[in-house]
Amino acid sequence: MKSITLKAPYVIYIGDEHREAYAKTGVGLVQWRPELCCGQIRHSSDAFDMDIPDMTVADAVAAGAGSIVIGTAPVGGTVPDSWMPVLKEAAAAGLDVVAGLHSHLNDVPELVEAANKGGSQLIDVRVPPVELPIGTGKKRSGKRLLTVGTDCALGKKYTALQLDKDMRAAGLNVDFRATGQTGIMIAGNGIPLDAVVADFIHGAAEILSPDNDDDHWDVIEGQGGIFHPGYAAVSHGLLVGSQPDAFVVCHHAHREFISGWDGFPLRSIGEVIERTIEIGELTNPDIRCVGISVNTKHLEAQERQGYLSGLADKYGLPCVDPMITGTGDIVSNL
Amino acid sequence: MKSITLKAPYVIYIGDEHREAYAKTGVGLVQWRPELCCGQIRHSSDAFDMDIPDMTVADAVAAGAGSIVIGTAPVGGTVPDSWMPVLKEAAAAGLDVVAGLHSHLNDVPELVEAANKGGSQLIDVRVPPVELPIGTGKKRSGKRLLTVGTDCALGKKYTALQLDKDMRAAGLNVDFRATGQTGIMIAGNGIPLDAVVADFIHGAAEILSPDNDDDHWDVIEGQGGIFHPGYAAVSHGLLVGSQPDAFVVCHHAHREFISGWDGFPLRSIGEVIERTIEIGELTNPDIRCVGISVNTKHLEAQERQGYLSGLADKYGLPCVDPMITGTGDIVSNL
Repeated sequence: MKSITLKAPYVIYIGDEHREAYAKTGVGLVQWRPELCCGQIRHSSDAFDMDIPDMTVADAVAAGAGSIVIGTAPVGGTVPDSWMPVLKEAAAAGLDVVAGLHSHLNDVPELVEAANKGGSQLIDVRVPPVELPIGTGKKRSGKRLLTVGTDCALGKKYTALQLDKDMRAAGLNVDFRATGQTGIMIAGNGIPLDAVVADFIHGAAEILSPDNDDDHWDVIEGQGGIFHPGYAAVSHGLLVGSQPDAFVVCHHAHREFISGWDGFPLRSIGEVIERTIEIGELTNPDIRCVGISVNTKHLEAQERQGYLSGLADKYGLPCVDPMITGTGDIVSNL
Repeated sequence: MKSITLKAPYVIYIGDEHREAYAKTGVGLVQWRPELCCGQIRHSSDAFDMDIPDMTVADAVAAGAGSIVIGTAPVGGTVPDSWMPVLKEAAAAGLDVVAGLHSHLNDVPELVEAANKGGSQLIDVRVPPVELPIGTGKKRSGKRLLTVGTDCALGKKYTALQLDKDMRAAGLNVDFRATGQTGIMIAGNGIPLDAVVADFIHGAAEILSPDNDDDHWDVIEGQGGIFHPGYAAVSHGLLVGSQPDAFVVCHHAHREFISGWDGFPLRSIGEVIERTIEIGELTNPDIRCVGISVNTKHLEAQERQGYLSGLADKYGLPCVDPMITGTGDIVSNL
């Protein structure tokens, strides 16, 4: 297995979770891939409602579901006992069970037994594929765009998803390539890059965006940050293996230090552009920055336009908030 | 367990291997750590002789050996059946069994049983410790030197070992820190950095050279190369996590392309110095290059001095071949 692949459509398991913040995997799936979500399974009407059809496992099977995807994040990261009846029923009925928990579905004997009975798979999207290759550095056909960041957790995945959507709407031939657990669930496939063994980071990034048509774009979800004191190595390997033609720098309007690493002031967008080009040139001499994407949710509406156009002028690049303005200005610059 | 630690002294298992090239782990141990090698176990006098006492397992136990170290590389990387009687006897007698094979000792039931009986450990030095931390980027006390390279396999480990030896001889307070399997066997401890999960590369590099006395030097074995199309991510994480005060660039006099990656011309020593400083400044603004170490074994003796002094003049740095001139000129520059 070279890449995780999920069977659609999905029925999303919400159980009795009533808080939206804890159901964000399910919410993200419905937001970005509504056409793949045939329904939700809730234990009661008090549970969070994603406004898609309520179903039982039997309904989901009848509706042709391929997988039951755990849409919530349980405290502690393990499978609660209260989930077991539904998950076992689903596995035994032939639905793949998909989760991104810290503990692994395949370590729960009752689930393994049910999956064997139903001929279904238990898929932990935090577990990377085996037999990954070493990076070759060879140029691949097709075009690639990578989202990079001044830090972690500021919108690299959402920027990539919005670019994918806007590029598709503009008639481009495009695929979103996921490198983290939520992205993998949304894309239906991908590689959890931060869980790969160090020697294979470059190689994993290479097989994530294989040879393709000359006019095809892969939009690749970035990880970490090239100036991050904890995760820069992952970002470096993803950059070199992705060999992007284009990259977008993601930033958060109100962040001044690396989140959780207070001794490290955020580097400027300009420094991130420069370093990304320096490193990326190894496998793609034509690499260029095509835009800036900023999370401006903490700015007042009247400040936002001035902030974005100030950055656009400073760097001579389109500057967007993907969740508010969309990424059309960047797509026009490709 | 945060770092692999081996019990000395070692009896080296050679078995019936008669080719020196295939016994290089054993030869390296005897070359760099003769004081830790109490003897060798050979099946016959035809096997390669490392010129240390021949022993049986019983002799090794009587001599106070802590471990039996497999000193050869079998074809295919698995434990041959012919080795089993000696390894089982050693494990059952309380000697730890140490190997750096592709297959794992702990996957061989007969060996696990013998080790349980003898209260000994089966140590696979290719397997990284569990529960590694995420990198913090915090400055640690003490001084650090890292060997970096224009490529893989051109002397980063040997340069570090020779520096360790020459610094010790100069009266410095120094430890060699190993990041690869052979280095770990020589040092008796370390972390196989290329086998660590990507998210933990920086953190693994940090715990490899912990806080120490202000005048203490850690000499850290480099991995990969910062311009390497397959392994640059590992080099980046090791550099940032090591936060070196000093680094030495290792090079091979006759290499023009990345070995095994023919499309990638070797970058110059100057480019490696510049990029290493750029990246290393994140966690140590005082990082500097203190010397150049070149493998010149393919040069004629009369060419060597001119080659080394040419590089020394070009870069204004001491330039040595560690195996021929030693590293004294670099030690004087610390």
